[in-house]
Amino acid sequence: MTSEPASPPSRIDRRKERTRNALLQAATTFLADGHPNVSIQQITDAADVGFGSFYNHFDSKEALFEAAVARVLETYGTLLEDLVAAYDDPAEVFAVSFRMTGRLQRQLPEFVRVILNEGMRVLIHDRGLAPRALRDIEAGVAAGRFDIENLQLALMTAGGALLGLLQLLETEPDADAGALSDQMTARLLRAFGMSKQEAADLCSRPLPPQPEL
Amino acid sequence: MTSEPASPPSRIDRRKERTRNALLQAATTFLADGHPNVSIQQITDAADVGFGSFYNHFDSKEALFEAAVARVLETYGTLLEDLVAAYDDPAEVFAVSFRMTGRLQRQLPEFVRVILNEGMRVLIHDRGLAPRALRDIEAGVAAGRFDIENLQLALMTAGGALLGLLQLLETEPDADAGALSDQMTARLLRAFGMSKQEAADLCSRPLPPQPEL
Repeated sequence: MTSEPASPPSRIDRRKERTRNALLQAATTFLADGHPNVSIQQITDAADVGFGSFYNHFDSKEALFEAAVARVLETYGTLLEDLVAAYDDPAEVFAVSFRMTGRLQRQLPEFVRVILNEGMRVLIHDRGLAPRALRDIEAGVAAGRFDIENLQLALMTAGGALLGLLQLLETEPDADAGALSDQMTARLLRAFGMSKQEAADLCSRPLPPQPEL
Repeated sequence: MTSEPASPPSRIDRRKERTRNALLQAATTFLADGHPNVSIQQITDAADVGFGSFYNHFDSKEALFEAAVARVLETYGTLLEDLVAAYDDPAEVFAVSFRMTGRLQRQLPEFVRVILNEGMRVLIHDRGLAPRALRDIEAGVAAGRFDIENLQLALMTAGGALLGLLQLLETEPDADAGALSDQMTARLLRAFGMSKQEAADLCSRPLPPQPEL
């Protein structure tokens, strides 16, 4: 046999993967709780893995934390990507992304706390939410749906307001995440040149179901 | 003499004040540079004051950093307060505040870095920018200038977008701060229900001179 199907991950591969995930999860929790100053020992304790195994996966605490933030942004971004895949109108893609981002806070509060602790830096991050939002805004301009003269400024407007929404939802766990997300999205669509009526229509359409996580 | 005019600060008072200010300034620089993990020793070294004098002024590093953030927010807020004192129309007060906040970044980049590193927390801080912005938005609604159903959400929209603007200005030191601030302000006024024309008019009016710092 010269050609074999790819062999399934070995027991060692699976254990490596588990260790890596446990480290990432522990880092995510520390970042969400606003404790980036923990030691590697505290991280491996929280992850329930041996101290020595840390350096098999990451060169430094900073590298682990960077990977943890990238994982959060990428997870959030990919979830949104899947949710909007069925829509054609770029304005609706933008609207559904925003309306769902707020709603997802209720499902992923720890991820959102990581994002909030990262703060405005996520808006200049090259992964996750910012590049996708920029692409959506650009498509909306190209399709004549948005009236925008400066894409970067529009991204900062939308991204900043979105972080404001996530902070509000984090601070008020009992508030109606759906209603607040829809109101915020409608405001942004008006900031991007849509009429009150158009924005309201776009923000009252049915949404895809919340993803199973 | 039973009643004397308040005596001028003594030499000791002045020295105490200088020490306190030097500690606050050192803390501000560490916060702006994203180094909140320094030791008290490093702070007193940077402030060029004796280690022992720290506890005459602050109970802990956390108390010093909190005071430094409050001073930044209060300074920024008071500057804006003075700049808008001459305006009557609440929509113009809001517009001038926002247009000047961006411009002030060029004069106070270190303060803005502290604000950006604090991130979304400044929007729920009880001092400085957030309470003043909320009051301005409220006045705009009361005067029938803004069409807003949820004040807290409007604050998060405006405040988040403002932080986005400050991040953009920080990232692009050569960009035209005035033009970007005016564009962002006009977008927010449209988000708050103003027409494109009204918003553009309000954002092209003369501004007060930049304050001397």
